[in-house]
Amino acid sequence: MKLATYRNGTRDGQLMVVSRNLNAAVAVPAIASCMQELLDNWDGIAPKLEKIYQQLNDSDVDGSIQFDEALCESPLPRAYQWADGSAYVNHVELVRRARGAEMPPSFWEDPLMYQGGSDDFLAPYDDIEMGSTEWGIDFEGEIAIITDDVPMGVDAKTAGQHIKLLMLVNDVSLRGLIPGELGKGFGFFQSKPSSAFSPVAVTPDELGDAWKANKVHLPLLSEYNGKAFGKPNAGEDMTFDFGQLVAHAAKTRHLGAGAIIGSGTVSNKQGTDHGTSIEEGGVGYSCIAEVRMIETIRDGKPATQFMQFGDTIKMEMKDDGGQSIFGTINQKVVQYEGPEK
Amino acid sequence: MKLATYRNGTRDGQLMVVSRNLNAAVAVPAIASCMQELLDNWDGIAPKLEKIYQQLNDSDVDGSIQFDEALCESPLPRAYQWADGSAYVNHVELVRRARGAEMPPSFWEDPLMYQGGSDDFLAPYDDIEMGSTEWGIDFEGEIAIITDDVPMGVDAKTAGQHIKLLMLVNDVSLRGLIPGELGKGFGFFQSKPSSAFSPVAVTPDELGDAWKANKVHLPLLSEYNGKAFGKPNAGEDMTFDFGQLVAHAAKTRHLGAGAIIGSGTVSNKQGTDHGTSIEEGGVGYSCIAEVRMIETIRDGKPATQFMQFGDTIKMEMKDDGGQSIFGTINQKVVQYEGPEK
Repeated sequence: MKLATYRNGTRDGQLMVVSRNLNAAVAVPAIASCMQELLDNWDGIAPKLEKIYQQLNDSDVDGSIQFDEALCESPLPRAYQWADGSAYVNHVELVRRARGAEMPPSFWEDPLMYQGGSDDFLAPYDDIEMGSTEWGIDFEGEIAIITDDVPMGVDAKTAGQHIKLLMLVNDVSLRGLIPGELGKGFGFFQSKPSSAFSPVAVTPDELGDAWKANKVHLPLLSEYNGKAFGKPNAGEDMTFDFGQLVAHAAKTRHLGAGAIIGSGTVSNKQGTDHGTSIEEGGVGYSCIAEVRMIETIRDGKPATQFMQFGDTIKMEMKDDGGQSIFGTINQKVVQYEGPEK
Repeated sequence: MKLATYRNGTRDGQLMVVSRNLNAAVAVPAIASCMQELLDNWDGIAPKLEKIYQQLNDSDVDGSIQFDEALCESPLPRAYQWADGSAYVNHVELVRRARGAEMPPSFWEDPLMYQGGSDDFLAPYDDIEMGSTEWGIDFEGEIAIITDDVPMGVDAKTAGQHIKLLMLVNDVSLRGLIPGELGKGFGFFQSKPSSAFSPVAVTPDELGDAWKANKVHLPLLSEYNGKAFGKPNAGEDMTFDFGQLVAHAAKTRHLGAGAIIGSGTVSNKQGTDHGTSIEEGGVGYSCIAEVRMIETIRDGKPATQFMQFGDTIKMEMKDDGGQSIFGTINQKVVQYEGPEK
């Protein structure tokens, strides 16, 4: 099943069932008005939506319209929980090596995860409005899952059964603010502004064989300023699967229905030290920071700059037949002029 | 105006208007069913609730019942944003001194703030269920505010106008898990489990002269295992006021309506090095960690242990006439037996 949230002037938007080929969509207000309502009662509501989804794929459904991902909010325009892991430990190792820091061996056994802010997600086509490029604006391409209610202390295997939906996410990061914030010891806050998610969220069965062992075994495609930038496979080098990430998040708390858990930046090692760019025949990267790290390790300093005003980033994932699974995240960085006076 | 959320079998509970003396309450489903609905449209709904509040204070209102804080959820049983500052820098300095760490001078100018998890708050009378006392279970008594929509880049003065409601909070902390998590560099996650808030949230005008310069100038009363533990004044030694904390949280993001911002553990310096206990004639503390820090500085090691199963913590704040303002947080630590199989 594929689902989206259309803008409709409300804070939580209008839940839409979307056809597998992303051509058609239909609102289902009699069943659920918004995505959170579905997640609050997944077992009661999802089967009804599945029926409509099958009809939409097979034939025409009353009230269906052409699907337009530009009209979408993020599937959850706001959420109660957004916890982002860093499961591609290759990415973590690279970041640390570039700044000359050792990586503790425990990082291979105990997931890194930060608590994100979830009150005001960007839509997949929203501009990334920022006050200054000196903040070091970067994208981070990731996979994210949405859970139903998860009990505290769940084990990793059982945790996988709580994964109801999958999305892509652009975890916007302000690299220039990160060292100062991490130096203060309380983790990210200002350096992790609002994230944007793919227009469409899908149930795991939509991925077929590509959903295995709680990982998505498909390339994550990033296009930066109209040029292919990355296509690493999200199923490779993922040290912690989504079951392990959910279990980590739920160690000392219950997770409420609609909790979003991210994978961290998708990154492949490719048998090289730290992967290679698409131009060099490799799979490239899912954030600018990795390129700069490699430049730093190789040349002593980074050459690639972070995002400038006017820069664009697209993210997408396709199935083996070339069909877009989640629609496209498609954002431009623009100058924020400050609050209205 | 005073408001509360009654348990009613739904995730968001039933919004109640509560009389100033906390004796009476009335549900207002025709105006707003839950607290978030009010915050989503504060300007449209709050004036209607104010009228009912005045009637409830002056006389009987149709459908009003005796208010029972034991039936309350936290005012927002789940929220989209929970950001907790550490505005009583005395507390921060003490923690660092006890572990022999320097405190950067910037800590007096740039607030510490961590991103908390907000999907599953405890009710004010809920047990604190934890898997192990080895995690170092501690309470932290704080003030918290709730905002309406706050634009990115708001200045501290304007930010104060976005403060709509005030509460108390017990920011449950797992001290044994903190060093490991902070050592990983991504901030708190497992070490900050679900928090509990006071039964009643109040508009700032309810505090009269005690609400000055975006601070609450009243003692925060903590009672640990039935014994007075702390009464520090929340208006003293608060280095950053709530306007500054909101502005800090909104530097690189908009804050959605219903964002909760905490003060950090209330702590008074009292002209001594780090305050003194109530037994010594001082104002005491708002968490066990501070006592242990002082013991460490004085004796080389802590003597007071963290919370054990069966331990209780109460938090309250009274006006000059002795009237409880927010009702009482009243919790017991119990062993969590793990998820149902």
